[in-house]
Amino acid sequence: METHVLLLHIAAIILTARIFSEIAAHFGIPRVIGELCSGVVLGPSLFGLIEPSEPLRLLAEIGIILLLFEVGLKTDLGRLLHAGRGALMLAIGGFVLPFLLGLGICYYTFHLPLLVSMFVGGTLTATSIGVTVRILEDLGRESSAEGQIVLGAAVVDDLLGVVLLAVLYEFSIAGTVSIANSGKVMVFMAIFFTLAPILAKVLSAAIYRFHAESKAPGVIPIALVALVLSFAALAHAVGAPELLGGFAAGIALSRRFFLPLGITLRVDPDFSREIHEQMRPIIQLFTPIFFAMVGLSLDLSAVDWSSPFVWVFSLTLAVVAIVGKLAGGLLVPENRYARVAIGMAMVPRGEVGLIFAELGRVSGIFNNEVYAAIIIVVAYTTLLSPFWIKAYYRVFGAKFIE
Amino acid sequence: METHVLLLHIAAIILTARIFSEIAAHFGIPRVIGELCSGVVLGPSLFGLIEPSEPLRLLAEIGIILLLFEVGLKTDLGRLLHAGRGALMLAIGGFVLPFLLGLGICYYTFHLPLLVSMFVGGTLTATSIGVTVRILEDLGRESSAEGQIVLGAAVVDDLLGVVLLAVLYEFSIAGTVSIANSGKVMVFMAIFFTLAPILAKVLSAAIYRFHAESKAPGVIPIALVALVLSFAALAHAVGAPELLGGFAAGIALSRRFFLPLGITLRVDPDFSREIHEQMRPIIQLFTPIFFAMVGLSLDLSAVDWSSPFVWVFSLTLAVVAIVGKLAGGLLVPENRYARVAIGMAMVPRGEVGLIFAELGRVSGIFNNEVYAAIIIVVAYTTLLSPFWIKAYYRVFGAKFIE
Repeated sequence: METHVLLLHIAAIILTARIFSEIAAHFGIPRVIGELCSGVVLGPSLFGLIEPSEPLRLLAEIGIILLLFEVGLKTDLGRLLHAGRGALMLAIGGFVLPFLLGLGICYYTFHLPLLVSMFVGGTLTATSIGVTVRILEDLGRESSAEGQIVLGAAVVDDLLGVVLLAVLYEFSIAGTVSIANSGKVMVFMAIFFTLAPILAKVLSAAIYRFHAESKAPGVIPIALVALVLSFAALAHAVGAPELLGGFAAGIALSRRFFLPLGITLRVDPDFSREIHEQMRPIIQLFTPIFFAMVGLSLDLSAVDWSSPFVWVFSLTLAVVAIVGKLAGGLLVPENRYARVAIGMAMVPRGEVGLIFAELGRVSGIFNNEVYAAIIIVVAYTTLLSPFWIKAYYRVFGAKFIE
Repeated sequence: METHVLLLHIAAIILTARIFSEIAAHFGIPRVIGELCSGVVLGPSLFGLIEPSEPLRLLAEIGIILLLFEVGLKTDLGRLLHAGRGALMLAIGGFVLPFLLGLGICYYTFHLPLLVSMFVGGTLTATSIGVTVRILEDLGRESSAEGQIVLGAAVVDDLLGVVLLAVLYEFSIAGTVSIANSGKVMVFMAIFFTLAPILAKVLSAAIYRFHAESKAPGVIPIALVALVLSFAALAHAVGAPELLGGFAAGIALSRRFFLPLGITLRVDPDFSREIHEQMRPIIQLFTPIFFAMVGLSLDLSAVDWSSPFVWVFSLTLAVVAIVGKLAGGLLVPENRYARVAIGMAMVPRGEVGLIFAELGRVSGIFNNEVYAAIIIVVAYTTLLSPFWIKAYYRVFGAKFIE
């Protein structure tokens, strides 16, 4: 595609996303919905002005990696670990329940083949870490107790999702699953998430010296973006989603992160704030591209709206998708109002659901009708749950927000 | 190409470019040379670690557009217009002389076909606005009298180059040239460069209101990048180089730009400074990608270094390339020491020379030997002239810097 067309696409995407976000905010709707809708409007679902090209996908990927970096930067690792038990139960519950429910209903009620049923169940396990985080941010709850639990669970869900995807993919090709293989992936990921923040912290001390000694400006944006993108590639190399590499780098550079064994690195305490200030315009530029691209990838015009199977199947799956995550929320040791809020925050499937759906379609496991139903479920959980979450906080927020 | 590979490429490019730029600065070499060399090292000339892919080209293009936007932002239109006569003479002299000299020598001395000779002459007319501007910035002379003349001339040269390219392209296909066609291109470009800054100024007032009224941060990076990229696409639409669209937008948003007829727009005078502050990290991130990509595109391993023709031909052309621009500098009504400095600043061919060379190669007009010689000339004028310019300023600077 020619450069000037891509330049126009980028300009159109960021501007439309922002205008829709302002309109949404004006009506009290979460901004992320505006950004997602801008993609639906620009994309094949409605006007078909822009189709997702490789360079746009890259910019979107950078956007979500940088957003997760920023989330990591604002995360207090102590509080996140404190939320650990609740987050783990939420993640596992909200993973296992939708999987088993989805699998069972597809296999026993809709009589779909076992592999298809497993893939549908897999799709329902997804939690969109990007959309979930943005909803919490739009509500100003990203640093709250329940926000930390949801964040931790979303991270764990993303990791579990990758393992499940690998397992299903292996099963679809070989017909069996080797525990050794999926075990290896999990061990790699565990090593990465233990070592990555320590490595990032050590590198940040080097960046700090570089920054203090260089006579020309621009060290922070360059060194930080290079660090974050390398960690994303590193995460990919161990089999984890790239955006979690950005998150690990962010955690390490946050003000509250200390190295184990009390190793001290001479880093100015204001450095983390300066990092945030200089990175902010870059993050603000890239992240809307990601959310618009989620909307762009959601081809609602591919859905055969006249098929009764699509309607019944998608409605059933949507119920499973919501009930499964809400049930996961009930496992969290919190106030019962908070439990519901936590479960709700896990509902959006977003880009992770689309990745599962796309893989199912490309590998021929999903036929058009199953694919269409999945797309509806993703659209429904992604586009509508921010509304209820906001409404829920308005009505019941007082009962669990200290 | 897979996303994680591209992420690694971006990280490697920006980091290597910065490290080379620091090493260069340490030895008193202009930083831009470091950035260009980083591309030579990473690219096919040396290690072949990275090849220029479409997404990287896009990021590089955004980089040069944003750099020209920043240059425009720092430009005082009054001073630029004041430099107008000198800049125009410099541009035309430094365009016509290398063209005629290159054409004559190729045709009469080396007995190349007429079309090939014309294309070689065309390649020698180029001035790399990106490299030239960066050399002036590295010397801190971008706002000086001679800096404004060079900037103005580089802009005009870029426009003339496009017209010449269009004419040569038409000639190579049709065998004749229609004055009407090239006249149309010039009229379009003239209209664009008259109206674009006014339009940008009007839009900036809208952005200012948007910025003041939005409750969420991030208006400036999004609105400004969208504006700049749209103007780049608009410039392309009228047949001008995209980076000049960025320049026009920058000029319009600079503090010293006033609308004709004294139309006042209620814009906070600090707004232009705030724009610059928020845009700076983005510009710092993208522009090194451009210079590294110029180095990456320069495949020195494609040159047959054992061919005597290549050596003689390229040496002759290099002399023509330098003499032609220096002679152009002598036409400028300035102190004679300043004239030489001005002529020298116009020598680097950089990316513009590479575009001509690539077009000649792809269309079959240049054979391998001619192409190799052109690449050597581009490499030589781009990589070495920053050295002499810096040395010249050190020795003779006192004689023309007030």
